[in-house]
Amino acid sequence: MEIRVSQFGHNRQTPLLDTIHNPADLRKLDESQLPQLAEEVRLDMINAVSRTGGHLGAGLGVVELTVAIHHVFNTPDDKLIWDVGHQCYPHKILTERRDEMRTIRQGGGLSGFTTRKESIYDPFGAAHSSTSISAGLGYAVARDLAGKTNNVISVIGDGSMTAGMAYEAMNNAGAMNSRLVVILNDNDMSIAPPVGALSAYLSRLISAKPYQSMRHLAKEIISKFPPRLETAAKRAEEYARGFFTGGTLFEELGFFYIGPVDGHDFSHLLPVLKNVRDCGFDGPVLIHAVTQKGKGYEPAEKAADKYHGVSKFDVVSGKQEKTPPKAPLYQNVFAKALIAEAKHDDKVVAMTAAMPSGTGLNLFQEEFPDRTFDVGIAEQHGVTFCAGMACDGYKPYATIYSTFLQRAYDQVIHDVAIQSLPVRFIIDRAGMVGADGVTHQGSYDLAYLGCIPDMVIMAPSDELELMNMVATSATIDDKPSAIRFPRGEATGKVDLPERGTVLEIGKGRVLREGKHVAILALGTRLADCLEAADKLAAHGYSATVADARFAKPLDVDLVKNLAANHDVFLTVEEGSIGGFSSLVSNLLANEGLFDNGLKFRPVCMPDIFIDHDSPAKQLEQAGLDVDGIFRKAMSALGQEVAKSSSSIA
Amino acid sequence: MEIRVSQFGHNRQTPLLDTIHNPADLRKLDESQLPQLAEEVRLDMINAVSRTGGHLGAGLGVVELTVAIHHVFNTPDDKLIWDVGHQCYPHKILTERRDEMRTIRQGGGLSGFTTRKESIYDPFGAAHSSTSISAGLGYAVARDLAGKTNNVISVIGDGSMTAGMAYEAMNNAGAMNSRLVVILNDNDMSIAPPVGALSAYLSRLISAKPYQSMRHLAKEIISKFPPRLETAAKRAEEYARGFFTGGTLFEELGFFYIGPVDGHDFSHLLPVLKNVRDCGFDGPVLIHAVTQKGKGYEPAEKAADKYHGVSKFDVVSGKQEKTPPKAPLYQNVFAKALIAEAKHDDKVVAMTAAMPSGTGLNLFQEEFPDRTFDVGIAEQHGVTFCAGMACDGYKPYATIYSTFLQRAYDQVIHDVAIQSLPVRFIIDRAGMVGADGVTHQGSYDLAYLGCIPDMVIMAPSDELELMNMVATSATIDDKPSAIRFPRGEATGKVDLPERGTVLEIGKGRVLREGKHVAILALGTRLADCLEAADKLAAHGYSATVADARFAKPLDVDLVKNLAANHDVFLTVEEGSIGGFSSLVSNLLANEGLFDNGLKFRPVCMPDIFIDHDSPAKQLEQAGLDVDGIFRKAMSALGQEVAKSSSSIA
Repeated sequence: MEIRVSQFGHNRQTPLLDTIHNPADLRKLDESQLPQLAEEVRLDMINAVSRTGGHLGAGLGVVELTVAIHHVFNTPDDKLIWDVGHQCYPHKILTERRDEMRTIRQGGGLSGFTTRKESIYDPFGAAHSSTSISAGLGYAVARDLAGKTNNVISVIGDGSMTAGMAYEAMNNAGAMNSRLVVILNDNDMSIAPPVGALSAYLSRLISAKPYQSMRHLAKEIISKFPPRLETAAKRAEEYARGFFTGGTLFEELGFFYIGPVDGHDFSHLLPVLKNVRDCGFDGPVLIHAVTQKGKGYEPAEKAADKYHGVSKFDVVSGKQEKTPPKAPLYQNVFAKALIAEAKHDDKVVAMTAAMPSGTGLNLFQEEFPDRTFDVGIAEQHGVTFCAGMACDGYKPYATIYSTFLQRAYDQVIHDVAIQSLPVRFIIDRAGMVGADGVTHQGSYDLAYLGCIPDMVIMAPSDELELMNMVATSATIDDKPSAIRFPRGEATGKVDLPERGTVLEIGKGRVLREGKHVAILALGTRLADCLEAADKLAAHGYSATVADARFAKPLDVDLVKNLAANHDVFLTVEEGSIGGFSSLVSNLLANEGLFDNGLKFRPVCMPDIFIDHDSPAKQLEQAGLDVDGIFRKAMSALGQEVAKSSSSIA
Repeated sequence: MEIRVSQFGHNRQTPLLDTIHNPADLRKLDESQLPQLAEEVRLDMINAVSRTGGHLGAGLGVVELTVAIHHVFNTPDDKLIWDVGHQCYPHKILTERRDEMRTIRQGGGLSGFTTRKESIYDPFGAAHSSTSISAGLGYAVARDLAGKTNNVISVIGDGSMTAGMAYEAMNNAGAMNSRLVVILNDNDMSIAPPVGALSAYLSRLISAKPYQSMRHLAKEIISKFPPRLETAAKRAEEYARGFFTGGTLFEELGFFYIGPVDGHDFSHLLPVLKNVRDCGFDGPVLIHAVTQKGKGYEPAEKAADKYHGVSKFDVVSGKQEKTPPKAPLYQNVFAKALIAEAKHDDKVVAMTAAMPSGTGLNLFQEEFPDRTFDVGIAEQHGVTFCAGMACDGYKPYATIYSTFLQRAYDQVIHDVAIQSLPVRFIIDRAGMVGADGVTHQGSYDLAYLGCIPDMVIMAPSDELELMNMVATSATIDDKPSAIRFPRGEATGKVDLPERGTVLEIGKGRVLREGKHVAILALGTRLADCLEAADKLAAHGYSATVADARFAKPLDVDLVKNLAANHDVFLTVEEGSIGGFSSLVSNLLANEGLFDNGLKFRPVCMPDIFIDHDSPAKQLEQAGLDVDGIFRKAMSALGQEVAKSSSSIA
């Protein structure tokens, strides 16, 4: 299955794949042709991703599985649900989207994940993990109610299986008589190396039960799925008995367990899938398929992260084309700041939910391995675990992306905030995220945290401010605090100290004084606000520009002064409605500061879902770029200005 | 252990309990005295709850467990964490709070749950389920980092064990070498009869492994916890081997499993707890204790819900003192409305996360058992399960309390809203909840849902409106919708039709026309707004009162008209900042309606956590009663009015 270098480039040969428009074509192939098709899909995918960047390793690991599922099952009538969806590139190639693969993750192009609006072959969109069993069970139950007979197949990785949501779904599915096929794609690797007891358990399972021979598998399946059982009672009895005959965890949760099978071997996959399709069993089945992330492409197989997410790369060398960074990543500045704090305070500890490198915590871990906790894909548990540590005098930093913190919202309120526990939330990817698109936009954190009493919420305008805010958060010992900042590179325009300076809680700063317009920015939009002020000046209006620093508690004096001394008052934030602007307008209303005709204008994300594109384009679309801020101010001044033609290609 | 009727009332005899002020006293007792102490605690608790109402069955089930834990472990240095906390009444009696038990769940009195601010014996507050293992692991890891040696004991029910958060915590704990004792309090009953595969598994476990003899248990524990193992390596080996010798699900997740043991038998409990305390094992241990909810009080033992939550009751008869309802409960009106819809549309289905009677779905289930799905304590799964059904053409009603929907926030955004799936969220207990207090206040749903694009959010002002909104939601097939309404009795002042009438989406209604003040209410505060308008009239100001019906989409014309034709504009809602008022003020700002000096005043919950009390008191505290609304309007009119003395006892 190793792909030869000569197969890449313009000379690539994909004669079989060229005949496949959709899975119906695929199903016309003879089983003996499937290995060749898989090889061609792999080749095609590597070529495509080498030019676009994207998720590579996960897709390479499921090429055979994808081909086998579409060959055995009658998609799209049979529903195939990919968990997370970052492994769906082979699936997209085989489901009428091959021609568009070069547009993936680009504005107007294919999504990097499965998505319902893109194809009838994507029955359930994804991007966050561990949703596929729940969605699949919903489909299965709906099918039963409607008296239909289609199959439902959910494919979930071993990493995704560690999230509580997957367990809730298994607990429910395991007690229902609804036919559902779950394929556990066990590649022992989600994004980071796996953690947790389940991962260890699966490894032991594989070593204790080596790949079964086909004869044995067939026998096992037949014994599990007798063609026709006399009565439901008898079936229930068989079922119950199974639990005390060396059952796996999955059997204990009510699933029929089949495996482990080699997820790259069609002679394993096809008979198992066909048997499951044809057995007529009314209940959940789990097929444990063992795969290798990055399979078939040597540079990916050898890389530590198996080329989870890649830039454009050279196919022959595997070398990724990385533009030299102009500035440090915010996540790494955070890590630097936290390391500095931790050196001065042995109570500083850090938690990640399976994202050590994305959050910068890999750097912290190198310095403080004993004070770093990777809890797995388990945001709910992770936050309350931090709450427990905080109760005993520690200073936990819960580092979670803005969208993933949505998974722990109740824990933030119930376990942390109500108890006034000093858990520090480090919220990366807050704001526009670019190519990951709608499911990953960090839009809502200011709204969903802003409504929680006594929560300190900060947003730095640059990387120096981030360091200062990390230092500040280390001093907040009587309540929760949060720091939100965007994905990607910082400004690169400020010198960074060894350690941050503690800021006064609830105090902003004024960067420029003017008299017509007040612009109060929260976070990194500040730079564009200053540019917008320049544009206003060029049109004869002077603007005060202030950095709020804190969304909560607000700088009451600053807000009052801005309102009292300007006709027009803009708030600017990279977040949804209901966030910073609402906190400001609530203060303005309660203080009677609207009463004299203040022209208040919130500049925030529009109330729509924003698809994948470059962050610059997304900001432009949202009216959060220089021109958008400028035009909003001019409009409030009674000067409507046409939108500048975009400077972004 | 059966308590005799003669023991109740003023003649009750609790000579041993009278000597116990705190657990240190308890630990001075001889083990032989503990059964008597348990009996006296039970007696005391029944007496107390008979006068206050509250959670009865859960506490009765853990009397022996509570006594045994405090006898064996050195609380409060050893940390005892009760999951949910509604079973903590015996614990409160034994930890310096016996004298205050008659104040439980009343304003200024004890909380009905564990809470850190109440006692050093409550190291982690709770009320929502399934947090105790996470918090306990946090405590355990903090202890290890600090080089301390205390024990950490988390007690979790079998119902709570079905939530994903508990699994995430086990997966993490099972892979760490941190000493943690988890006691699974298996009473086969959370609030409702248990559902799901785990429940069935635990039943099989108990029937397959009857209570072990003490000799056997001791042997088993000794073999599991050899006093001193030579090397960590050897221990790891022993540990790994255990997994394939008939391991339970808990062993597969890395726990040492002990049990089942009789949770009412001190001769079982004490040696097991002492062994676990003294064994010196560095890892997580799970003790499977089997108990009976309502134990020792015949009326509770016999009741279907084991007296989960009770009103005041007569101890001898067990008869609860229930004031005859003046009006139907909102939850039951919802059920009536949904049944009517379901009769006309076989695509209507309903989901509850282990709260069939609290949500009214028990009534729906009686009519449509095949279309009702109780997924267990699994809000995350439940919402995405509904999303799956919606994909296949069904109309799922996800009925979840406001605070519990916080558990499924990411699923609401990621699985439902982004995919524009028509899941209907029925959000009960939205607003003040009374005696359940701070952890159950339905404060945030308007803020956390209001920021989501294209979500329809309704709130009925009375029970007829609720029926109409249920009918309306049934017609919304292209996007999610939500109906939020408060706990408890409806108005009783309107006749209810057989079936609701479909409302126009995004249209409110004007109930009264005035010229000075506009009051735009969302939800059941409308009645108080009308009364506040009467008070305003008595002071010479006329008010327009309107019912928004929809928080989203807003009735733009209505808001514009109110703003254009009044000097003062109040929004009124039973929710936090960032909710309805923010959506209105965002519209006002973007339409330039503040520019002419509109005196806008949001009336919402204050930005603080609101403790348990009567709902009327809570509304008064929040300024959301008639007087609060009236005063807010008068203040905006430049007429400060002193607060009326409370009319509430």
